[in-house]
Parts: sequence; structure tokens; C-alpha cells
Amino acid sequence: MSETSFRDKVLFTPGPLTTSLSVKAAMLRDLGSRDHEFVELVRDTRRRLLALAGTSQDAGFEAIPLQGSGTFAVEAVISSCVPRGRELLVIANGAYGRRMVAIAERHGIRTVAVEADDVAIPTSDSIEAALAAHPGIAMVAAVHSETTTGLVNPIEAWGAIARRHRRLFFVDAMSSFGALPIDLEAAGIDFIVSSANKCIEGVPGFAFAIVRRDALIASEGSARTVSLDLLDQWRGLEANGQFRFTPPTHALLAFHRALLELEQEGGVVARGRRYARNHELLVSGMRELGFEVVLDPAIQGPIITSFFYPDDPRFDFARFYDLLNERGFAIYPGKLSRFDCFRIGTIGRIGDAEVRALVAAIGEAVGELGVTTVAGRGGVPA
Amino acid sequence: MSETSFRDKVLFTPGPLTTSLSVKAAMLRDLGSRDHEFVELVRDTRRRLLALAGTSQDAGFEAIPLQGSGTFAVEAVISSCVPRGRELLVIANGAYGRRMVAIAERHGIRTVAVEADDVAIPTSDSIEAALAAHPGIAMVAAVHSETTTGLVNPIEAWGAIARRHRRLFFVDAMSSFGALPIDLEAAGIDFIVSSANKCIEGVPGFAFAIVRRDALIASEGSARTVSLDLLDQWRGLEANGQFRFTPPTHALLAFHRALLELEQEGGVVARGRRYARNHELLVSGMRELGFEVVLDPAIQGPIITSFFYPDDPRFDFARFYDLLNERGFAIYPGKLSRFDCFRIGTIGRIGDAEVRALVAAIGEAVGELGVTTVAGRGGVPA
Repeated sequence: MSETSFRDKVLFTPGPLTTSLSVKAAMLRDLGSRDHEFVELVRDTRRRLLALAGTSQDAGFEAIPLQGSGTFAVEAVISSCVPRGRELLVIANGAYGRRMVAIAERHGIRTVAVEADDVAIPTSDSIEAALAAHPGIAMVAAVHSETTTGLVNPIEAWGAIARRHRRLFFVDAMSSFGALPIDLEAAGIDFIVSSANKCIEGVPGFAFAIVRRDALIASEGSARTVSLDLLDQWRGLEANGQFRFTPPTHALLAFHRALLELEQEGGVVARGRRYARNHELLVSGMRELGFEVVLDPAIQGPIITSFFYPDDPRFDFARFYDLLNERGFAIYPGKLSRFDCFRIGTIGRIGDAEVRALVAAIGEAVGELGVTTVAGRGGVPA
Repeated sequence: MSETSFRDKVLFTPGPLTTSLSVKAAMLRDLGSRDHEFVELVRDTRRRLLALAGTSQDAGFEAIPLQGSGTFAVEAVISSCVPRGRELLVIANGAYGRRMVAIAERHGIRTVAVEADDVAIPTSDSIEAALAAHPGIAMVAAVHSETTTGLVNPIEAWGAIARRHRRLFFVDAMSSFGALPIDLEAAGIDFIVSSANKCIEGVPGFAFAIVRRDALIASEGSARTVSLDLLDQWRGLEANGQFRFTPPTHALLAFHRALLELEQEGGVVARGRRYARNHELLVSGMRELGFEVVLDPAIQGPIITSFFYPDDPRFDFARFYDLLNERGFAIYPGKLSRFDCFRIGTIGRIGDAEVRALVAAIGEAVGELGVTTVAGRGGVPA
């Protein structure tokens, strides 16, 4: 068991992540999807998700797991909960914000995008102006931790604007939920989504939405699909505790175990602290090697960090990636058009030892590539 | 490892199924979704799926895994591949056929349903008549093995009709693919879907479509969603071997192992033979106990079998289900409105020993309930 696990590379990515062996071992079972034990596990998982979000059914919220990747849950909220004939405002400063726009447009939902450069935060004024100009907007959507760069958006401030304008507020917290504290009430959040294989450290196979029950019920008649119909998914779970369609039973077993391990670690605060320490260790180690972080520290989050390519023609990312692979580490390519950069995630079942080992391997890889000038801004002017 | 596994009930359901321990143990790893090894595993899985379908890329077919349950793949084909402004014909004799109608209607696709009673096969004449009456129909859709009852539809005959009328033919082979032989060319199939946790004996987490490449490419511009956009999913896989959105890496590891074990067993024919024997053993054992099969043997398949409730007021299905649970077996409730019945699946990693043990447990459960008159047609006239 440990042999196969130890052979795997440590994943410094935004997910799927390195998970604990006990989380994976929880999948060594076959439970029926209508089995009493499984139904109880789903019920307990939904209750624990609400607790993790600092809320409960009594407080008017519901947790709804949905089969598929995180994007499926994003599309579920947009395609199920923006009323027909109304519009969506997307605050976009990265690929995941822009994906929300693409999703809405695919469903024929008129969309207003308030955009900023991927390394900057859209201003509150631009959001206010868009809401004032478009009275048809029913929902404001934003990404909390933009995995495109690693920046963290000020969702509390944006939620206050949405609430003042009496619009629904939807947060894609895919890569932050479970590690960055989010106060649903304070941020005026109606819908928030994340997935099993991010900060809760489960395995991929499903995502989940946490929703204000009133807002969900008010969406009746708006669902544009069957599989991603969020209200119907909730009603199915409420009716008999079962998913409408076959659930990923093994991923749910792993996730339940992962939730227990998150609680054992000390909850959101403790997990966020470990990730922040991973990030700080990484950045200081990378700086010692001469690497520069793309983002302004004021907007950089602890989840994933973008680094400029060294300003040296001998730096070849594909070779660099392979050299790290050979040493047992997987990092992530960059996702910015303006800069040449790569990304390193600092979430999952990793800590000081793994981060230090990665930094050492990066030092070796740079040496092997013959890169002498590490400092760089990707060869492209900012 | 075996301890947790042995504790589980044997699943006599249509899935999730009892799988081999080696299939589950394949999930004791964490692979990155962009990792070379994972990309290669996906490539090999797609190639093996085509081979299992008796075809190949050279023959013009493509295998496309899609996150989510089987229904997600059904919705992907309907919502991505029925051209805008054209209609869908659904041949429906069960809940899964009717679900196709509901999916199409949700997307605003005009749908013609050729229906039959759930225990009968729609006639070719009725299909011919519907096609003649509705020239706007672009696609004919049918379910191969209807899990509602366990009947197997004559898809070869229906495909010949669709081909003669030059319409696309889509088969939902969720619970038959991998165990019942299907000749794509002979049946004139353009799109066929199944899922990871059925006859291939993987774990749930994704489904897949096998499609005629020409028909897929011709669907350009028809996709009504992003997550279920079948053409885009294929293009993403072709571009770099990666899923567009986070794949269920662990379910894919299990599935690849399951494909190897299916080949070791002797492929589709050998697996179908084991399931047929499971079914025959079950039916003969149940008949000895006095139970009657709902379907005419001429249309009954080996995947799942519906049995009438005993004609005795002491038969209480919930108690019966629990008594079998206590003995280590999970069966399935019925899904017919006209008859009181329950279902027993005969797929998954089960054989003679498990089937005989189940029949013995059913005998005990009936005795414990005090049921004396077992034979019955559910108390409802046929």
C-alpha cells in the first residue's frame, strides 16, 4: 500500500493534490448508492460542510454535492439560478472568471463583465457602475482565489456591493474553501462552490455548492439542464438522502474521511496556517534562488504562487518540469498571456519537509539547465 | 485492507457494484491530472475502450470520457449533438428512455417519443411511422438494456431503421456495454454511452461516449452547455491528452485496472457468459422459492431481473430488504408503477457462490417474514 503511494510524485499543483493514505484507503470499499450506511455518510458530509462554512440548515443554508468537476458546480449555479430573462455580472481577473462568462453566454444568459488585468483587482467603482447601468442583473459572480495567478479577491467588499444593490452574490471558492475563512453572512453570499479535491484534501469526482435555501427555492423554473439542475439535486437529496443519479461513492467515502482529518488538524484556521507557512517557505526559498513572484504580496494568497521564468535563454520550462518530475515533484505551468511564468501550489497533504525538498530540487534543476541569471520577469515587459 | 472490503455487503444492484479489491487498490495513488503517466493512462484507456467496442480511431470512432454519472453522458450527447432547430426521436419503454425525453425537453429540443409499456418492446412500425411523420428528426435515441425492468431492446433492428431514414442513432448502453456484444457498424450506431461503474466493473466517477468522429465534428455549434460539450471535451483530449476540467484521477486509475481485468477474464463474451450464468442461477433459485420473473424470457437480459412481490400480505419489502442487508446482501427496489416488484442485479465481481448465497438468504428472509404464498404477480392485475 505505502509502496505504490511513495512512488508517486508530490503534487505542488492546484489539484488533484497529494492526499493522505488514510483518505485514499477509505475508498477500499464498495457501498451501494442507496445503502443506509452511504445515505447516512452523505447526510453527515452535508452537515459537516455547512459547519465548515460556519453555518447550518437552521441558519437557512444547504450543502449540495454534485457529480463532476468544480466547473460543473459553477455551471450548475449559473445555469440553474440566474432567472430566465435576467442578466449576470461577472467580476473577472483570471481564467476562471472568464470561464463564468463563457458558461453564461453558452446558456444565452446576457452577461456583463467587469474585468481587470489578471494581476490586479477590479475596483469597487467599476462594479457599482456596472450594476447601476444594468438593472437586469440578477446575480453578481466572482472568484475568491484565482488559480490563474494565486491572487485572492476581496469578496467581502464585493458582497457588500451586491447586497446593497439587492442582487444575488455567487462566489467560486474552488481553491480557497476549507483553508481561507469565509463568513457567508458577512460577505452576503447566496451561492458558493468548491470541489472535493482542493483544500479539504479529498480526491476528485464531485464538487459542492453551499446555498442560501431561500435563494435556491426562488430559482424554481430557471434550470437549463437536467444533470446540473441544482434545485432538483437538492430536492432529491432531501427526499430520500440519495443522489438523483449515481454518485461517486468512493470519492464520497474519501471526502468524509478528509473532512474528519481537517477537523483533527484544527479546522479552517489550522489548515490555512499550514498552507500559509508552505507558501512563505516556498517564496523565501525561491527568492534565495533568485526567482521573483509575479503578484504584489498585497493580493497574493497562500494557495498557489506564480513565479516569473528566469531571464536566461537556457531556461526551458518543459525540461525544468521534467527535471523536477525525475526528482519526485510535479509543479504547474503558468496561465498568463502577458508573462512567461510557472505556478507552484502549496495545498494538499504537504508541509515544511516537502516544500524544502522541492526548493532544493529546483536549485538542482536550475543548475542542471545551466541557468545563471535566475531573476527575471519572464522576458516580457510588465 | 481485506477486512474493510469483506465487511461490505455484496451488491446485487445495477451499480455502483461490487468490484475487485485490485480495482479499488489501484486508487491508492495521487496522480497529477497533467502528469505524463496520467495522460498516458487516459490515452490507453480511450484506446482500450474503442477496442472493447470492436472499433478503433482508424475505423472513424473516438472514445470520450466525461466527468459525472451516466446521465451526464446521455445529456452530453443530446445537448451537444442534436442540431439546433432539429428534433429528437426517443424510443422509450422504461424510466431511462423517458429521462432522455425529459433531458431533450429541458434543452428546448422538440422530441417525439415512441413509447411502449415498460414490459414490452415498441414495434418497428411505430418507429417507421414516427420518422415518416416528423422529417425534422435528426437523431433516434434508444436504451439498450433498460435497467427499469432488465429488458434488452433490439438496437440492431432499430439502428437499421434509423440508417435507412438517414438519421443519427444514439444508444444508451449504460448497463450493457462490456457484457453484451454490440456491433457499432452493424447496428448503425453513431453515439453510444456507458459509465465506469457498470459492466466494466470500475468505480463511479465518470461516464464515456464512443462516437463516430464525422458525426461528432458535424455537431459543431450545437452544444448547449460548457461542462457537457462533447465536441469540446474531445478536442481538449486530442489537443494535449488532458481533460478540459479536473478529471476523477482515482476513478480513472481504477477503470484502467478494471479494463485489464476484463481482458484477463476473456473480454465481452466471457463477461457476458458469467453474467448470464449468474442470472440463470438466480432465476432458477428464485423459482424454486416460488418467485416469478416479471418479464417474458424472450426480452429479459442477464443484467438485472425484476421479480414480483409474493402474493402474501406478510411480505413487506422494507423488512425483506433489511433482512437481506443483515445477511450481507444489497438488492434493489422495483421501478414499475403497474406492478409491485423488486430487482436483483447480476453484474459486478460476483459469481456462482455469491448468487447461491443470496438465494439462500432470500429463502431465510421469506421464512422470517412468515410469507407462505410466495408466487405472485405483485397483487396488481397484469
